[in-house]
Amino acid sequence: MHPSRRIRSILDGGASGWEIVYAARDLQAKGERVTMLTIGEHENPTPAPILDAMDASARAGRTGYSSVMGSLGLREAIAARASRRAGAPVAPDEVVVAAGGQAALFQALCAVIDPGDAVVAIDPLYTTYPGTIRAAGGIPRIVPARAEDGFQPDLAALDIACAGARALLVNSPNNPTGAVYSAASIEGLAELARRHDLWLISDEVYDGMAWDQPHLSPRALPGMAERTVIIGSLSKSHAMTGSRIGWAAAPAEIAALIVDLALNANYGLPRFIQDAGEWALREGDAIEDDLRAAFRARRDLARAALSQRPGLRLSPPQGGMYVMPDIRATGLDARTFAERLLEEERIAVMPGESFGDAASGHVRIALTVTEPELADALDRLAGFADRLAAAR
Amino acid sequence: MHPSRRIRSILDGGASGWEIVYAARDLQAKGERVTMLTIGEHENPTPAPILDAMDASARAGRTGYSSVMGSLGLREAIAARASRRAGAPVAPDEVVVAAGGQAALFQALCAVIDPGDAVVAIDPLYTTYPGTIRAAGGIPRIVPARAEDGFQPDLAALDIACAGARALLVNSPNNPTGAVYSAASIEGLAELARRHDLWLISDEVYDGMAWDQPHLSPRALPGMAERTVIIGSLSKSHAMTGSRIGWAAAPAEIAALIVDLALNANYGLPRFIQDAGEWALREGDAIEDDLRAAFRARRDLARAALSQRPGLRLSPPQGGMYVMPDIRATGLDARTFAERLLEEERIAVMPGESFGDAASGHVRIALTVTEPELADALDRLAGFADRLAAAR
Repeated sequence: MHPSRRIRSILDGGASGWEIVYAARDLQAKGERVTMLTIGEHENPTPAPILDAMDASARAGRTGYSSVMGSLGLREAIAARASRRAGAPVAPDEVVVAAGGQAALFQALCAVIDPGDAVVAIDPLYTTYPGTIRAAGGIPRIVPARAEDGFQPDLAALDIACAGARALLVNSPNNPTGAVYSAASIEGLAELARRHDLWLISDEVYDGMAWDQPHLSPRALPGMAERTVIIGSLSKSHAMTGSRIGWAAAPAEIAALIVDLALNANYGLPRFIQDAGEWALREGDAIEDDLRAAFRARRDLARAALSQRPGLRLSPPQGGMYVMPDIRATGLDARTFAERLLEEERIAVMPGESFGDAASGHVRIALTVTEPELADALDRLAGFADRLAAAR
Repeated sequence: MHPSRRIRSILDGGASGWEIVYAARDLQAKGERVTMLTIGEHENPTPAPILDAMDASARAGRTGYSSVMGSLGLREAIAARASRRAGAPVAPDEVVVAAGGQAALFQALCAVIDPGDAVVAIDPLYTTYPGTIRAAGGIPRIVPARAEDGFQPDLAALDIACAGARALLVNSPNNPTGAVYSAASIEGLAELARRHDLWLISDEVYDGMAWDQPHLSPRALPGMAERTVIIGSLSKSHAMTGSRIGWAAAPAEIAALIVDLALNANYGLPRFIQDAGEWALREGDAIEDDLRAAFRARRDLARAALSQRPGLRLSPPQGGMYVMPDIRATGLDARTFAERLLEEERIAVMPGESFGDAASGHVRIALTVTEPELADALDRLAGFADRLAAAR
């Protein structure tokens, strides 16, 4: 009587960084004030008008089974948004709704790879990527991006890794680094996908949060619509993390295969959540603009607070909800830095190792508190790092 | 550029029966009145007090990420209910919440089998079982149960099929047959699981709907708690199909592995839906008793309406939300019967073939309309069958 070997392989026992989160929560439970800069979640709840739409749908009796692909109205609204953001037409039959970006990514991988296929991904990466690749039966091939390149992808190293692989997974604006891939990077990644005949899974959940240059989707490049799967979500753009609503925008054949999987693996999403998502998207950009404006301002604040400090070195933070300074000048590894920062300053950040080897010596700071609280925390964090660096 | 071979294998192109549902919906869209007895969904929406609890949770700001395993409160409530229903203790750390019984089944299979493992299931079966087994990488081994045995499992045939398999999937009260497995059947299935060292996946989503004898869970039998995974759901018991809330109750090690998968495959359920489910369970049996009383009355009605008719032969309907009469005396195959019934009487039922070869020559009738409408529809259905039988 043994469990599945496959499922036991999903987590490989690597550092998760969650120890810091748990330790911080323990302190909070004891009544201590801790500034939490760990998890990528808005400090704000879902906007009330979206909850109004959800409740109205449920009260109207839309509490039964829904279309597993997603309601046509929601898929139309997603297709319209994805077309605009990706700069390339996306049709409603190319959209399949999923229980969050995480589920969309898992299902998209299941649709394009077979067990044992290699999937190339770029380190630093979102913590679940390797596990999600393994859960889908794939073998992660992780290629580092360098801090000195501003965490842009290393196309030459990727070229080697892509040989014989089945898919390439990319994420811009990037979690955890805050990098936004340049046009040259996106074009280079697309060229790799074409040359090695790969599926390109493009996680664009931060597509509205590219501050200094326009967000580019590889789907818009020649020959790429047929091999690109965009992963999207309302979690970040509309503060709907808890509603678990996302999508894959893919060639119609792949979208249909994801539906085959979803029919047998979850049977669709609550209709009232779909209706709330559709309402939010049809409202236009106002809700989203309000929410993201805060993150742009916080990015500016963080860039000012963490630049030209002896203890820190910050790659240009260009998008998303995070910044990731290099803390090696302090002489500490990131895990120890995060532990001591929590202990001495009551500030919780994620050690870079949680996001791959290339992020070691860095800490990820989620910009998920109000500006005054963030300014205070970053000031103390930088002072903490400076003191350590000075004492070496 | 090919999609995954695995995902293309999920649906094997067999008859789905959905053609009848689509044809019926087309007629409805044209303004025709059709009695829908196809899908296993309450005619009633989710009870308003449950929606109140959901909305209150969301308005209280519980719209962020939640525990992927499920909130402790919900898992405690599920464990209490599962302990009572299964007649064997279930602890909160043996419960993992999932996006409906379908997701719980998929994740449980992923946790106990490896790609290529055989999973034994009993025909007639719920339509998605073979696809769900294939989606989890397994090979379905389908063993027929006979109408003349009242669709109780054929233990001798199962014994042969279980040799070398990894898991056995059972469902009582049964969809589509309406059979409730006898104590001898459940004991025989448990003995097969022990003798062949199998995981026993016991889909008990209709556990509150055994009308003539108590529901028995194999988990309560000696040596079975360590190898049984119960699949449960609030879809049927609380008319919450659209909320997508279910669970697996499994040995703690398996529950933890399902969480590993869920971390990487969907990242948990909306907290406000979990809170609504917890509220519903803590209310006790009143909500559920109200909802299920209707199905018992409808079963009685159907048994009376469909028995001792020349055109029909009905195995004893003992539980669940369906009855499945044999219509072979009409001289028609089930698909043709269903098509003509829709055309001539505007009644939609599912052809038995949708649920496996052993259900051919039968039609599944979902008892999901009010008693007056059901009485009228069954009277017309039986008359339709009798006329066909008389004309042969």
